[in-house]
Amino acid sequence: MPAPTLEHATPAGDDSLDIAVPSDLPLQVQRALQEDLGAGDLTAALVPADRQCRATIISRESAVICGRPYVDACFTALDPAVRLDWRIAEGEVASPDQVLLEVTGAARALLSCERSALNFLQLLSATATAARAYTALIAGTGCTVLDTRKTIPGLRTAQKYAVRIGGAHNHRMGLYDAILIKENHIIASGGIAAAVDRARQIDPRVTVEVEVECLAELREVIAARADIALLDDFPLELLREAVAINRAAPRPLRLEASGGVSAESVRRIAETGVDFVSIGAITKHIKAIDLSMRFA
Amino acid sequence: MPAPTLEHATPAGDDSLDIAVPSDLPLQVQRALQEDLGAGDLTAALVPADRQCRATIISRESAVICGRPYVDACFTALDPAVRLDWRIAEGEVASPDQVLLEVTGAARALLSCERSALNFLQLLSATATAARAYTALIAGTGCTVLDTRKTIPGLRTAQKYAVRIGGAHNHRMGLYDAILIKENHIIASGGIAAAVDRARQIDPRVTVEVEVECLAELREVIAARADIALLDDFPLELLREAVAINRAAPRPLRLEASGGVSAESVRRIAETGVDFVSIGAITKHIKAIDLSMRFA
Amino acid sequence: MPAPTLEHATPAGDDSLDIAVPSDLPLQVQRALQEDLGAGDLTAALVPADRQCRATIISRESAVICGRPYVDACFTALDPAVRLDWRIAEGEVASPDQVLLEVTGAARALLSCERSALNFLQLLSATATAARAYTALIAGTGCTVLDTRKTIPGLRTAQKYAVRIGGAHNHRMGLYDAILIKENHIIASGGIAAAVDRARQIDPRVTVEVEVECLAELREVIAARADIALLDDFPLELLREAVAINRAAPRPLRLEASGGVSAESVRRIAETGVDFVSIGAITKHIKAIDLSMRFA
Amino acid sequence: MPAPTLEHATPAGDDSLDIAVPSDLPLQVQRALQEDLGAGDLTAALVPADRQCRATIISRESAVICGRPYVDACFTALDPAVRLDWRIAEGEVASPDQVLLEVTGAARALLSCERSALNFLQLLSATATAARAYTALIAGTGCTVLDTRKTIPGLRTAQKYAVRIGGAHNHRMGLYDAILIKENHIIASGGIAAAVDRARQIDPRVTVEVEVECLAELREVIAARADIALLDDFPLELLREAVAINRAAPRPLRLEASGGVSAESVRRIAETGVDFVSIGAITKHIKAIDLSMRFA
Amino acid sequence: MPAPTLEHATPAGDDSLDIAVPSDLPLQVQRALQEDLGAGDLTAALVPADRQCRATIISRESAVICGRPYVDACFTALDPAVRLDWRIAEGEVASPDQVLLEVTGAARALLSCERSALNFLQLLSATATAARAYTALIAGTGCTVLDTRKTIPGLRTAQKYAVRIGGAHNHRMGLYDAILIKENHIIASGGIAAAVDRARQIDPRVTVEVEVECLAELREVIAARADIALLDDFPLELLREAVAINRAAPRPLRLEASGGVSAESVRRIAETGVDFVSIGAITKHIKAIDLSMRFA
Amino acid sequence: MPAPTLEHATPAGDDSLDIAVPSDLPLQVQRALQEDLGAGDLTAALVPADRQCRATIISRESAVICGRPYVDACFTALDPAVRLDWRIAEGEVASPDQVLLEVTGAARALLSCERSALNFLQLLSATATAARAYTALIAGTGCTVLDTRKTIPGLRTAQKYAVRIGGAHNHRMGLYDAILIKENHIIASGGIAAAVDRARQIDPRVTVEVEVECLAELREVIAARADIALLDDFPLELLREAVAINRAAPRPLRLEASGGVSAESVRRIAETGVDFVSIGAITKHIKAIDLSMRFA
Repeated sequence: MPAPTLEHATPAGDDSLDIAVPSDLPLQVQRALQEDLGAGDLTAALVPADRQCRATIISRESAVICGRPYVDACFTALDPAVRLDWRIAEGEVASPDQVLLEVTGAARALLSCERSALNFLQLLSATATAARAYTALIAGTGCTVLDTRKTIPGLRTAQKYAVRIGGAHNHRMGLYDAILIKENHIIASGGIAAAVDRARQIDPRVTVEVEVECLAELREVIAARADIALLDDFPLELLREAVAINRAAPRPLRLEASGGVSAESVRRIAETGVDFVSIGAITKHIKAIDLSMRFA
Repeated sequence: MPAPTLEHATPAGDDSLDIAVPSDLPLQVQRALQEDLGAGDLTAALVPADRQCRATIISRESAVICGRPYVDACFTALDPAVRLDWRIAEGEVASPDQVLLEVTGAARALLSCERSALNFLQLLSATATAARAYTALIAGTGCTVLDTRKTIPGLRTAQKYAVRIGGAHNHRMGLYDAILIKENHIIASGGIAAAVDRARQIDPRVTVEVEVECLAELREVIAARADIALLDDFPLELLREAVAINRAAPRPLRLEASGGVSAESVRRIAETGVDFVSIGAITKHIKAIDLSMRFA
Repeated sequence: MPAPTLEHATPAGDDSLDIAVPSDLPLQVQRALQEDLGAGDLTAALVPADRQCRATIISRESAVICGRPYVDACFTALDPAVRLDWRIAEGEVASPDQVLLEVTGAARALLSCERSALNFLQLLSATATAARAYTALIAGTGCTVLDTRKTIPGLRTAQKYAVRIGGAHNHRMGLYDAILIKENHIIASGGIAAAVDRARQIDPRVTVEVEVECLAELREVIAARADIALLDDFPLELLREAVAINRAAPRPLRLEASGGVSAESVRRIAETGVDFVSIGAITKHIKAIDLSMRFA
Repeated sequence: MPAPTLEHATPAGDDSLDIAVPSDLPLQVQRALQEDLGAGDLTAALVPADRQCRATIISRESAVICGRPYVDACFTALDPAVRLDWRIAEGEVASPDQVLLEVTGAARALLSCERSALNFLQLLSATATAARAYTALIAGTGCTVLDTRKTIPGLRTAQKYAVRIGGAHNHRMGLYDAILIKENHIIASGGIAAAVDRARQIDPRVTVEVEVECLAELREVIAARADIALLDDFPLELLREAVAINRAAPRPLRLEASGGVSAESVRRIAETGVDFVSIGAITKHIKAIDLSMRFA
Repeated sequence: MPAPTLEHATPAGDDSLDIAVPSDLPLQVQRALQEDLGAGDLTAALVPADRQCRATIISRESAVICGRPYVDACFTALDPAVRLDWRIAEGEVASPDQVLLEVTGAARALLSCERSALNFLQLLSATATAARAYTALIAGTGCTVLDTRKTIPGLRTAQKYAVRIGGAHNHRMGLYDAILIKENHIIASGGIAAAVDRARQIDPRVTVEVEVECLAELREVIAARADIALLDDFPLELLREAVAINRAAPRPLRLEASGGVSAESVRRIAETGVDFVSIGAITKHIKAIDLSMRFA
Repeated sequence: MPAPTLEHATPAGDDSLDIAVPSDLPLQVQRALQEDLGAGDLTAALVPADRQCRATIISRESAVICGRPYVDACFTALDPAVRLDWRIAEGEVASPDQVLLEVTGAARALLSCERSALNFLQLLSATATAARAYTALIAGTGCTVLDTRKTIPGLRTAQKYAVRIGGAHNHRMGLYDAILIKENHIIASGGIAAAVDRARQIDPRVTVEVEVECLAELREVIAARADIALLDDFPLELLREAVAINRAAPRPLRLEASGGVSAESVRRIAETGVDFVSIGAITKHIKAIDLSMRFA
């Protein structure tokens, strides 16, 4: 199976920004095809070997479409000469029954890839749609939606890509590219200031974030000059107070709210003035987009 | 990272049957840990190297618990001496706030594994819970819930395992272990009888299933001696007629209903007398179970 | 090394049926080339870098040719511009000294690939030839030749492909796609009926086969409504009786004979009326076809 | 699956010499188990999870037993606590119906591994037996049996190990560790002397061998100071002459005979005085040893 | 080969901080052993299979020792029962002829691992020693030594680990965890302010650094509120001016100097007041530490 | 990422000889790109997607250039349509500020590959340059420079390729393709003659070399008819005596000097008349060549 070229995707309506495709895309596509094709597609033989065909992928519901490079890689793997005419940009919103892609190629290859391609597209569009939904709900507040590490095992880079396509942003990729200090670490270090100091020693360049449970702790975190304070499960009133305390500080840090974030609550949380709201639901829940592939 | 032993899981309340664990479990766990740990867990260093600790994983909502062997593999990979005391059987229903697992080991290892272990457990428990829910809804009808190939790319074996733990059954694993004849194949083969004949030639042992769009086609499929007819998007009335036609046949086949299956409709569909109802929602949607890990 | 496209092969003289190529073909070819080329082909440097050449692969004996997609993948990996003119179809019978393939490309690439390509072709043609030989011996009996899980470790999908190209059929691919109940399982389950019932619970869709040691057990298996009874090492007389018993049953199942099957005995076994005869020799023994590659 | 330790095997009756196990053994075993177990062993669930059992592997025919480390790795992968009591040394000759191994462990693990373990053992014992047979046939002649690169794709290191266990020796492992100059290279280089000179420049340390077609060429090869001359398909008479010519040379090289070597001809070839006889049949043909595993 | 547990290393003389071991350590060790052992260690057979032995690894020169977890993994892979008594902590300075490690185990395993273990230790100690040397040269200046992406292909995580063990810090791991805006990006974006704005849109959390070529550009970068300005190849006088400009700014950023950094110049650069000095030489050059392993 | 074709490189000024590229080149390049690109190149998005550009790679110092096939593979992986115009042959000496390569392609792809390509080129050119330097120092002596197994873990084939490009030659690739008998082996075997005899039994075709510590041992090695004697850390006077002893022998073997070889000493060592001088410094030390990539 020829490996695809790594690309950048330009989300629709955003001509200035592009989103990088993860470098493990080829491996992800290879694994998906192998688990579906196994010892060989028994059914494709019911169609003549030389038959070419045209098919369309249609969205049956409104959704932010995400996953074009994964779909391209699926089809190209089985028919390097396939023609892929996308009718929608990566990150653009599809309407119900909209044709997303017209694909022309060997009928057998198209049948063998159909499910793998759709599985990527329905999953990544689901994540992008969720990211877009939360982003839209807090538009104009100045607050930014972040994802979390609550992802599907093995698909983190793909899901984090979909989050970006959806217009939200990524929290740390893993345990290696930022430090989030929690209660255990504070106790083990002998206090917030000590924990932040040690974190700076561990890595003077990565973001240091501290989870706080009350406003007193927040004040300590501000004094310790962390980069971000994570306010977990704070009621709105306390969030507002936290924002006020932070703004009054000589050196304010950034505030992230998390916990109990729902479509109902997210805007109120954002309007408290926090910088970030992080939402596990974007990547841990999947409401797969309803797609179908129709053969002409 | 030491690779785990492949096991069989005994779902709760079912002392006679065991579910085989997929042979790619070690690779799945290795990938999940690598994507989270990357160049190394920066944060764990905030806890002393020799600290042992005890933690519990708690379910915050009611759910069929699934994924114990994956969780075991995560923790064992980073602390081979970890002690894992499960308080719930694989496939058993947890109540809200129930302790699922008590884990004792090196504090750093536990912190480094926490997210990977929870990500497997919340995902697979979600799938098992969905499978159990649909299965419960049609209890007593004699109809069997099946999954589909609409799965998370790269995690098919794990999700199909969760489906079995949830008490539903697996449709084909991929394109290689059964033949499902659709409209395109029928046209290409010159009719249903010809298509079934060719499928038998392709493989005389695998199940041959034919998707039909009307009762006339069903009659042809029965006559052609396929194993299963797939009735896609049939209204209830037609499903009942299909069952009657099939029962009256000298050599009845098995009937599978699919399409538009929801929690509301599934029992009525099952009560029509079809043998199987296949439901993409079980694996393509994920409503991650809400879990937390607490350190004592 | 560019990865090849997965194809279907049309065996010679059979214009209606095609055989799916295993999805792990690219990995198999990559491994074969790596084990032969290692740190680099020292010898190819004796030929000028820009030399093009033409070579032919010739069969020195009569054989069913199998492995074209593997050979194509070998040559294409080292010279993407190579021209491959096959003079024989996949599955067609070659005569001694027949030219199978004319290949034109970079001389060094052809020399570097020669052995890997021939190793695949001589192995897979051997398996296909064995499959064809047994199939031919029982032509007209209505009995079908099956392979077994007695395969070369790591090459199961390739060998099972060769079996299909040879005109025989595949028994289960592995322990995951069918259930074969043996004596141990029967004892553990408390009898044949109980074992079959449990197998149906384990998976209601996969084929359930039971190995029997006498006619009394066969009657139990028929009563238990298994799909297939495996008659292992039955003398001809008992096979005939088994067929008669099964035909007289209200719901006959399919009968598979195995054990002690040789070129001498296979037709007599098939003529007893059993549905399948499974033969480990097809895949566990290799009588490599004698091939040579000649440079023009 | 825990990976096995790499070992050296001491062939029976040879207390001074040990054979190194290939470093890719763990990967080979992992692949074999994965292709057989796939999404999980459906059948093992018919046996209670806590059942321990004892089984023996028995050889049904006389054979040089080879593959113990591979068998150990198979069983240990699924039951790290398995007890393996070998009753025969690696490389020792088994009699028909001899117990080779007594294995005690989890019944399910033993059932799940049985076929993979036997597949390795029957294959590698076949190769070792063939190697031993040819070696025995020329005992006392001073000639050494060599294998070739005509191996099963992907299993070269395992087969070359079996050859050594069988008492024969390995020709080059691949294209990277020796230079074999054939007709094409000679033409391209402008003669034998030039070709050998260039080979020495390519690598001054690896063995340089030249295939010759007549005695005149042999003389050139001797003059060019190659290490070995390969006499392909030489009749016995010419082989004897070649030996004489070489012995008379001021600086004799070593002579290797190949082509048309059979059990009938090998001793006469060896008795001509050549140093090596290389035999593709040892690794390209497989006459799998008949083994069975019996559960107590 | 059993995979090692991932650990944290506590550099000598620093009881409060630990360095995380990269999660790809097991794969790195597996590859190193495979490339050295190939089809099997021919030489180890010269030593009896049951011989145990004791050996020491000795440093022949003064060096910061780094790579203990890699060495442990090498030995444990071939002899799980090996005893490893380190006489020096990870990150501690060895004197010439100091015993670093006493290892007791199977003689063959020790001989087979010797070179792989030493290759890791001499490489990683070289990198740690270089990092320590530069760090020591600027001690007390408040400036921090950083590495770069100029690493050995495939060994980035291991080298970045050695840098941390040596007491320096890591610049970004790759192109995915920070943004470094260079001249091309500035031109393409239409100016520094526009480039920084776009970078913030791309990812609001990662560090944004801008390479500047003159003080005017530095002022723009400060105004654009980037996180770091990279002063490449600035003479000392200009570096001092840059520091003054930055300190006078209402919102100073951090300054990184790079280019032309040598042991001679590094302290003068650090004394200008820049926050970071990044040095490609730490990872791109390797002055392997002279080690030997002696068998008792 | 499309995998590159394996090639042979023709070192400059040497039109008769070509060097084989290692077969693991595609995997090495894939790993290098993955470790640098990770979840995606964040920075490339600052450049428009459709921008093409031209860039040059320039050597800032004099060096033997090596690594062209690796560089080609890096660029082609991200832009299959890239145009690569090399201005220097593999193995040719570059002058300071010489343009080595002009590359034209997608600006983003070029930026994303830049570091990986340069990292290969600076490393392999360093190794080739070191090899060439030692080779040049002993020109005309008839002695050959060899590398050792002291290589960068995981990059052995690439470094051994660079050694050949630099004009030196490879010692054994690993423990599997030659036998080097050291003190331990001699003791275990009961003397030099016994050790050589056993080595010949282990493998009658591979080179057998014996490390000696004095002239008495050398005489034993000559008598035992090993292929090479390794004279480790012999002073010049003793080396000369060793050469004389060997030349006087009825069947001289080849002599290899090692230990304490430096640029200062190498010629004097070579002039003693030894056949080989092996130098760990060539591969274990890396003095990366100073390269830069400039965008037009």
